[in-house]
This record gives sequence, structure tokens and C-alpha cells, in this order.
Amino acid sequence: MNQSAIKPAIGFIGLGIMGASMAARLAAAGYPLHVYNRTRAKAEPLIEAGASWHATPKALAEASDVVITIVGTPDDVSALYLGDDGLIANARRDAVLIDMTTSSPQLAEELATHAAARGVHVLDAPVSGGDVGAREGRLSIMVGGAADVLARVEPMLRCLGTNIVLQGGPGAGQHTKLCNQIVIASTMLGVCEGLAYARSAGLDAQTVLSAIGGGAAGGFQLNNMGPRIAKGDFAPGFFIEHFIKDMRIAHEEAAHMGCELPGLDLVRSLYQELAEQGFTRNGTQALFKLYEC
Amino acid sequence: MNQSAIKPAIGFIGLGIMGASMAARLAAAGYPLHVYNRTRAKAEPLIEAGASWHATPKALAEASDVVITIVGTPDDVSALYLGDDGLIANARRDAVLIDMTTSSPQLAEELATHAAARGVHVLDAPVSGGDVGAREGRLSIMVGGAADVLARVEPMLRCLGTNIVLQGGPGAGQHTKLCNQIVIASTMLGVCEGLAYARSAGLDAQTVLSAIGGGAAGGFQLNNMGPRIAKGDFAPGFFIEHFIKDMRIAHEEAAHMGCELPGLDLVRSLYQELAEQGFTRNGTQALFKLYEC
Repeated sequence: MNQSAIKPAIGFIGLGIMGASMAARLAAAGYPLHVYNRTRAKAEPLIEAGASWHATPKALAEASDVVITIVGTPDDVSALYLGDDGLIANARRDAVLIDMTTSSPQLAEELATHAAARGVHVLDAPVSGGDVGAREGRLSIMVGGAADVLARVEPMLRCLGTNIVLQGGPGAGQHTKLCNQIVIASTMLGVCEGLAYARSAGLDAQTVLSAIGGGAAGGFQLNNMGPRIAKGDFAPGFFIEHFIKDMRIAHEEAAHMGCELPGLDLVRSLYQELAEQGFTRNGTQALFKLYEC
Repeated sequence: MNQSAIKPAIGFIGLGIMGASMAARLAAAGYPLHVYNRTRAKAEPLIEAGASWHATPKALAEASDVVITIVGTPDDVSALYLGDDGLIANARRDAVLIDMTTSSPQLAEELATHAAARGVHVLDAPVSGGDVGAREGRLSIMVGGAADVLARVEPMLRCLGTNIVLQGGPGAGQHTKLCNQIVIASTMLGVCEGLAYARSAGLDAQTVLSAIGGGAAGGFQLNNMGPRIAKGDFAPGFFIEHFIKDMRIAHEEAAHMGCELPGLDLVRSLYQELAEQGFTRNGTQALFKLYEC
């Protein structure tokens, strides 16, 4: 029997913008796909393409060798994984559960401990790269857990991402993703303040970007979000409400570790203000709207 | 007579790390070079290579078709350009004076007005790209002033930089440079906080950088300063004391325009704290030292 014919069955939970693209890539690579989602309608395209629908996470876990989850919040993750009807209690023996949600490192450690007691493996493996990265299989995947477990699932993760790095034990993937979000938070602050100053000084934002984008101020945020801000395009690449969630987790973890991050705190408070003004479903670059100058 | 044989005489004032490399490039390109510097010793290598030394800015101005200055602070610029012994009062008729110091936009406007009254032209043309960019002639040059004046000096500026962009009238070059510094300020804050969090979480900084450097957090500061921070290398690329000067100018200009920039204010206060601890001659990445977590 050909090795390529015995691909493990993958259960996929969380068919949002990211998850739907990721699940479709796994199906296209030939993995038997099992799906569950809170809103069934989002699973229909995958079901039509051959995926098996399950009415509960429990049923999905029973049918899968590997389960991938990418959902909203740590509470959603906790509800999926823990309890009698959860993934850990109902996973096949030696199954690998991979949580790709940006979630809490402490929760990731907790899940790993629960899973180990049942002979099940958990990896925390949040991603960056956005909807485009998910569609094109070019995500960065930051992994926490055991190296041998990662080795087992690496072929399928390679359908999703090009940069897969084991960062340490359980929770280390989540910690790394939070580092990423912490860097982005103040970087976006700098981009918005630089462009607010430019507008205030009567400069043309695009002309400024053409001068500074290739230098020491340059980077993904300035070079991708700067031109959108210059055009007044505040459509979501990444929703403000999701960014606020990530910054809240980062803040809580940092506080737990006794780590003061005044930049993160400032940016969080500014986005909170923006959310109160009703901009939760705008893209993160809408931080610029707070600058009246 | 061959056009290339009648290159204009260039006066150069300010032979620091940046200026010395820039002046040497102009001399190498065949421009007759006249030099003045507060500390004469720094001019010796250029004098040995054929540059003419002048004991005062006045004497230098009288001998030059174009004068380039790149000195320390707006006060230094003001002292050089204004007054009976200054560059404007003593420049040749129709001369072009180019201030490449990072300085005050308001001062740049003031110099342009004074110069116009004497039939002399001034451009503000601060740069970014650091010592390496200066050595290799790959600076970004942000120009404020008249397009026809820029056109006259563009051939010599092309010896210094690859990205020369006219941003608007007098002061617009300085405003653009301040935008650059404002973006860098909070970006550096994000880089330091992300890596402080990483250390606190027990992650390996280099491994974190390998995961996040190519994504939405990536950019010049993370990818160049991040590895230095990870190695504990706080040697100066750009001195903290110079960055504080730039942020002070940016803050004053922003305040003057009624533009509130809380990120800039926070970063300034943190660098001030660092300066009070004695780190003025470290590189800007030493902001990381403030994070004890």
C-alpha cells in the first residue's frame, strides 16, 4: 500500500476567514477532512467538496487522528477542549490536537497537562500572515509543545505555512505570537503618529512614504498600512476587536510575569477608545482616526 | 571646454561620522571641496586629499558655489547661517546652501526667507540611512525648497543618496525627517517590549525573531536592532542623545501645530529616563535596558 494513500484523518474546527482557507488547503492536499463549526453554513463549501460534517466536537474528535482548532477567544478554546464533551476527553488515543487560535499561554499549558493524562498530545500553534497567508499556505506558525509531536504533524502544517518554528514547551507558541502582537501594537502607533504629523504639516502622505518607507522607519506596517491610511482605507485586514483581544491576553500574561509594558498599555487604551467610538470591525490601521491633528 | 571640467565648488561644514563620509564622496567625484569644522583635526584627512581649509564659515562661503552643512542642533544651524559672519550674509550671489542637519522646520523656513532677501537659495535636506548609507552613497534625502534649486544641485546630491524626494517648500524636508523619527520612536518601543516579554516568558530571542521577523511585525528596526538586543549589543548605530534631540524638535513642532502624539511623548520620557541613567552615548536599541522584566 502506498504511503500517500494512508493520510491521517484531520478534524478541523473554526471555519472563519483563516480557518476556511486552511481547511480547504488540507482537503486539496488529500487529507480526509472532518469538520465542525458553530455556524454550519460556513462548512457547506467544504462539505460539498467531500468533507464529513460532525454535529459536535466530541463526534469530530472520535473520527480524527489530528484535530486543528482556530476559533475566537481563550474561552472558546477552553470550552472546546475541556469537559466530558470536549476534544481531550474524546480524542483517539495518541491523537494530536493543535490549537492555532491566538490564545492564552497559561491555557495552552493547562490543556497540555490534561491531554498528557489521557495519552493525547496538544500543540499550541498560533499563526501570523493574515487571510492572504492562509489562502496561499504561507503562514508563519509558532509552535509550543514536544518536538516529536511536531515532527508527526509537520507534513500537514507544511500545507499551511512556510515558516514553522518550535519555540519551546507548551505555551511557547502562544507566548511568541504575543511577542509578535506586542511589536505590532507600538509599531502601528508609530505609523499613525508619523502620518498624523505629516498631515498636520501639510505634507503629502504618499510622498512622505516614498521617502521613508525604504529606510530605518520601514517595515510591514508602514509599507502596507501606510498607503491604506493615506487613501483613507480603513477596511479590515485584521479586525480591531481581535487585536484588542490579543492585547488583553498579552497584558494579562505580562502582568502575571511582573513585566510592565507601558507602550502596550498605551496602545490598548487608544484602541479601547476607538472601540467605544464604534470602530471594532475596522482594520487596525483605523487607529489613525484618533488623531485629530 | 568639457562640462565635466567645470564642477561647482562645494563648501562642506560638519565633518562628523556622517559628514566626513559625505564630503569624501563629493571630493572623490571631482568636486572642488572647501571645508570648515569646529574641530579642525576631523578635516585633516580631507585636507590631505586636496580640500581647501577655511578658518571661518564666512571665508568658506565666499569661496563656494554650494555649501552643505550637517551639524548638531538647530542652535548650531542658526549660528552658522544667521548674523553678519554667517553663511547667508556671506554667500556668493545665487549660491545654494543645503542644510542636511536634522533640524527645526520653522528654522528652515526662517533661513529660506532670510536667504531670499539676499538672492541666495536654501534647501533643507536631512537624510536617513546612517553611517553605512553615508559611506556607500545610499542615503535617503528629504528635501524642502524650490524644485528648480533642487534641480541645480541634484547631480551632487546623487553622489550622496539614491532616494532624493522633494517634499514641498522650505521646511518640508525637515518635517518629513521628523515623520521618520516619529515612526521609529514607537517602533523601537514595540521591538523592545516584544523582546522584553520574550525574555520574561523564557523564550529564546533569536528563535522568536526567526518566527516573527518576516511577518507583520517585521521591519528595519526589528530585523536590525532585534538581533543586537538579543546579543546584548548596545553599541551606537544612532546615539540616544541625538535621538532625544530629534524627538524634542518633533514634539515642539507637533505642539506648535496642535498635534498630540502620546506615543512620541511616552518614548521621549523613556529615553529621557535612560539618559538620566547615563546611556546617552549608547545606541537607540538600549531602550531595552529599561525593561527589567
